[in-house]
Amino acid sequence: MNIILLSGGSGKRLWPLSNDIRSKQFIRMLSDGQGGFESMLGRVYRQISEVDSGARITIATGRKQVSLIKNQLGDRVNICVEPCRRDTFPAVCLAASYLRDVEGVKEDEAVVVCPVDPYVDASYFQALKELTEMARSGGANLYLMGIEPTYPSEKYGYIIPASNERVSGVFTFREKPDVAAARAYIAQGALWNGGVFAFRLGYLLRKAHERLDFTDYEDLYARYGEMEKISFDYAVAEREKEIRVLRFGGQWKDLGTWNTFSEAMADEALGRVTLNETCENTHVVNELNIPILCMGCRDMVIAASGDGILISDKEQSSYIKPFVEKIEQQVMYAEKSWGSFTVLDVQEDSLTIKIVLLPGHALHYHSHEHRDEVWTVMSGRGRAVIDGVERKVSPGDVIVMPAGCRHTVAAESELKILEAQLGRDISVEDKQKHEL
Amino acid sequence: MNIILLSGGSGKRLWPLSNDIRSKQFIRMLSDGQGGFESMLGRVYRQISEVDSGARITIATGRKQVSLIKNQLGDRVNICVEPCRRDTFPAVCLAASYLRDVEGVKEDEAVVVCPVDPYVDASYFQALKELTEMARSGGANLYLMGIEPTYPSEKYGYIIPASNERVSGVFTFREKPDVAAARAYIAQGALWNGGVFAFRLGYLLRKAHERLDFTDYEDLYARYGEMEKISFDYAVAEREKEIRVLRFGGQWKDLGTWNTFSEAMADEALGRVTLNETCENTHVVNELNIPILCMGCRDMVIAASGDGILISDKEQSSYIKPFVEKIEQQVMYAEKSWGSFTVLDVQEDSLTIKIVLLPGHALHYHSHEHRDEVWTVMSGRGRAVIDGVERKVSPGDVIVMPAGCRHTVAAESELKILEAQLGRDISVEDKQKHEL
Repeated sequence: MNIILLSGGSGKRLWPLSNDIRSKQFIRMLSDGQGGFESMLGRVYRQISEVDSGARITIATGRKQVSLIKNQLGDRVNICVEPCRRDTFPAVCLAASYLRDVEGVKEDEAVVVCPVDPYVDASYFQALKELTEMARSGGANLYLMGIEPTYPSEKYGYIIPASNERVSGVFTFREKPDVAAARAYIAQGALWNGGVFAFRLGYLLRKAHERLDFTDYEDLYARYGEMEKISFDYAVAEREKEIRVLRFGGQWKDLGTWNTFSEAMADEALGRVTLNETCENTHVVNELNIPILCMGCRDMVIAASGDGILISDKEQSSYIKPFVEKIEQQVMYAEKSWGSFTVLDVQEDSLTIKIVLLPGHALHYHSHEHRDEVWTVMSGRGRAVIDGVERKVSPGDVIVMPAGCRHTVAAESELKILEAQLGRDISVEDKQKHEL
Repeated sequence: MNIILLSGGSGKRLWPLSNDIRSKQFIRMLSDGQGGFESMLGRVYRQISEVDSGARITIATGRKQVSLIKNQLGDRVNICVEPCRRDTFPAVCLAASYLRDVEGVKEDEAVVVCPVDPYVDASYFQALKELTEMARSGGANLYLMGIEPTYPSEKYGYIIPASNERVSGVFTFREKPDVAAARAYIAQGALWNGGVFAFRLGYLLRKAHERLDFTDYEDLYARYGEMEKISFDYAVAEREKEIRVLRFGGQWKDLGTWNTFSEAMADEALGRVTLNETCENTHVVNELNIPILCMGCRDMVIAASGDGILISDKEQSSYIKPFVEKIEQQVMYAEKSWGSFTVLDVQEDSLTIKIVLLPGHALHYHSHEHRDEVWTVMSGRGRAVIDGVERKVSPGDVIVMPAGCRHTVAAESELKILEAQLGRDISVEDKQKHEL
C-alpha cells in the first residue's frame, strides 16, 4: 500500500502541549497497549505496519515538523517537505510527484491519502487497504471514506451518498452545517468526510498538471509557491463525477480538542500529579518538573508544559484557540532530530537553555552575529569544533564563544549542555550556518 | 509601645507560595493601598508605624526567617532569633530578656506580644496600644485581646469572659471546640483568643525564671534548648488569676488558608494569567514566567510557583496540609538578605541555579567538598574572590571552581549569575564557610 499521511496543524487547540513546532500528533501521551506511551504519529505508523508491513509511507509536511518526525520515526518513513505552506491539494500533488519521480511508483499504482491524526483501530487501516484495492481496479477515479456520524457535529464536512449501500456514488458534499442541517443530513444517510482519498497516481498527476505545468518533482518543488492555496476537497473531490464513497462504521475519533484528547489518554494523570479523593472526571498532564496538586477539581483538564499552563473546564476547553492566539510565548521546549532543547531562563539581555544531544548526533556548524555564548558541559562526552579546532568535551568543561565564533558539538554519549546566550539582540534568526 | 511580633509558621497551608523558608507572612500579594503589593509582615510593620511611629518592634523568630525579614524590612526592626524551635512561651521569654538586656527596656515598662500575621486595620493597633497602657497602669498582671467571633469556628481558642463589659475578667479558656460547643460558647459571650498578650516586662521575666534559672539574655540564649516546649496560653494565661480581656470588634481575619487569603488578595489574578469570561470567583497567583490560561473555573484558587502548582476548589483548599506534606520537593526559589536564588534545572549529577545578588551584597566566602561549580556572569558588575585572588567580573565572564576552591562574589550593580553545580553528591549541606 502506498500511503500519504498529511501532517499539518498549527497546534493551538492542544496548547500548551502543542505549539508551533510540536503539533498535537507528536504528543506522546496515548497508551501503546504495552504500558508505554506513544504519539498519534507513532500510533498511526504502528497500526499501518501491523495491517501492511510492506506499506510505503510518505509523510507530507512542512519544514518545521521534519526534525520532530525524524526524532519519533527515524528513517522508517519518507518525508516529502513542502517548501512553503499551501493547502491539501498542492501538498498531495507534491507528494504524488515525489512518489513517481523519487520513489519510482508507477502511474497505474494506487495511492491513498489520509490525515496523520485519526484515533482509530485496525479496521480503519483495513478500510484504507480496501480503498486502494478499489482504486487500483479502476472502477472509478476517486474513492473516499465516509464515516458514520455519531452526533450532528458542526465541525465536519458531510458526504451525502447516492445510496445507502456500503460502496456508493456521491450525491453531494456539504461543509460544516449548523446542528439542524447536520441532523437533517444524517437523517438522509449522510457521512462525515474523513479526509481519506484513494486514486491511481496518474489520475492525480493529471489533476496537478491542469493547474501547473511542471516537468517533475524537482521542478514542482522549485515552483511550489506558484500553486494556488486550495483544498483537495474543493480542487478534486467536489468536481469529480466518477467518485465512490466507502461507508465506515468502525472506531474513529478526532482528538483535536482537549475534551476528546483527554478521553484517549493512557492515564488520568501523567507526570508529577496528585489528585485528591474529591476530584472527579479530571485529566492532568504535567511535563514540568515541579508537582501539581489538584483538590476538588470536577470535569477539568489541566495541562502544564514549558510553554504554559491550561486549567479548563472540559466543555470550555473546545474554545481555547482565540485565547492561545493572544498569548505571546516563545517556544520553551522542542524535540529535534538531534535531541531537544529547553529554555530555562529568559532575561532582557540573556537567555539560558539546556541542550540534550543524542549519541551520534551533532549540531550544525554555526555562529551568531549578535550574541556571545558559553557552554558548560553538564554530563556526557563528545567532540566540539570551535573555529576549526577540534577538542574533546566532558562534564565540567566550559567553552566560551564570542559573537562570530563558529562552533558545533557532536555527542559520543548523551550530552547535556547548559548554554548561556548573552547580548541585547538574542533571536533565533541570528544563526549563520557554515561548512565544516 | 514595645511590641514583640511572633513570626513562625511551617508554610504548608499556602503551598506552593509558602515553603520551609518563605512562610505565608512573607508573600507579597496584599494591596498596599497605593497600587503596589506588600506582605503580611510589611503590612503589619506599616500599620504599627502609622499608629505609633516610635514603636520598638522586635520580631521573635527562628533562624530560617532572618534572611527574609532583613530582605523585606532591612534593619528597621530588632530580630530576636531562637537558637532552636521551642514554642510560644520560650520565644516570648527570650524576646523579653532581649528587650531588658540588649535594648535596655525597664522591668516596669509594658510589652505587647502579637502574631505577625493578622489581617486587620488600624483599630487593631489602637487596641494594642490600649492594652499596653492598661498593662503599664498595673491593674492586672496580664491583658488579652478577645476577638468577637463571626462564626462558630473549630480552629480557634475561646476566651469565656466573666462579664460582657468591654474590659472584663476571664471566666475560663476553651481550646478548639466542635461547632456545637463553639455555638454554645458564643451564646455565652465567648471571644476568640487572638494570641495577643500585654504585660509588664518584669512580670514575664519572673514567669520565665520560674521555669529556668538564667542570668541574662546571653545565658538564656545558650541554654534555650533546656526550655520546655510549652505555649504561652498554657504556661501563663490559663494559670493567671489577675487577668483581663479587652473585647475587640474591629476587622480581624486569619489569612491562614487559601480560601481566606485569596479574599484579601489585591487582584483576582497576579502574574501572567488569563481568565476567560466563564470563570467565576476564582483567584490565580502565578509566580512562574510562563502564562496560565483558565477557562470555566468556578470557586477555585490556583497558585503556581517554582515549588509546584495548586489547583483547588476554594472550600477544599483548607485541607491541603497532609497532601503537601507528602510532596517531596526541594525549595526552588528563595529570597535571601543578599538577593534570591532560583533552581532552573535538576539532573541526577548536576543542578543549575540562577543567583541574583543585590548591589552592595556579597555571598559568604565558601567552598564545597563534593561538587565543582561554574559561574557564568549574565548581567551586572562586581568583584569575585577565588582562592584568595580578587578579580573584577562582568557579563560573559566565566569562573570555574573545582571542589575545594574557595569563592565569593560581591555585587557593585545587580549581578545575575548562572551557577552550574556538577557532581554526584550535590547537597545544601556541603558548604564550608571561610574567613576572607
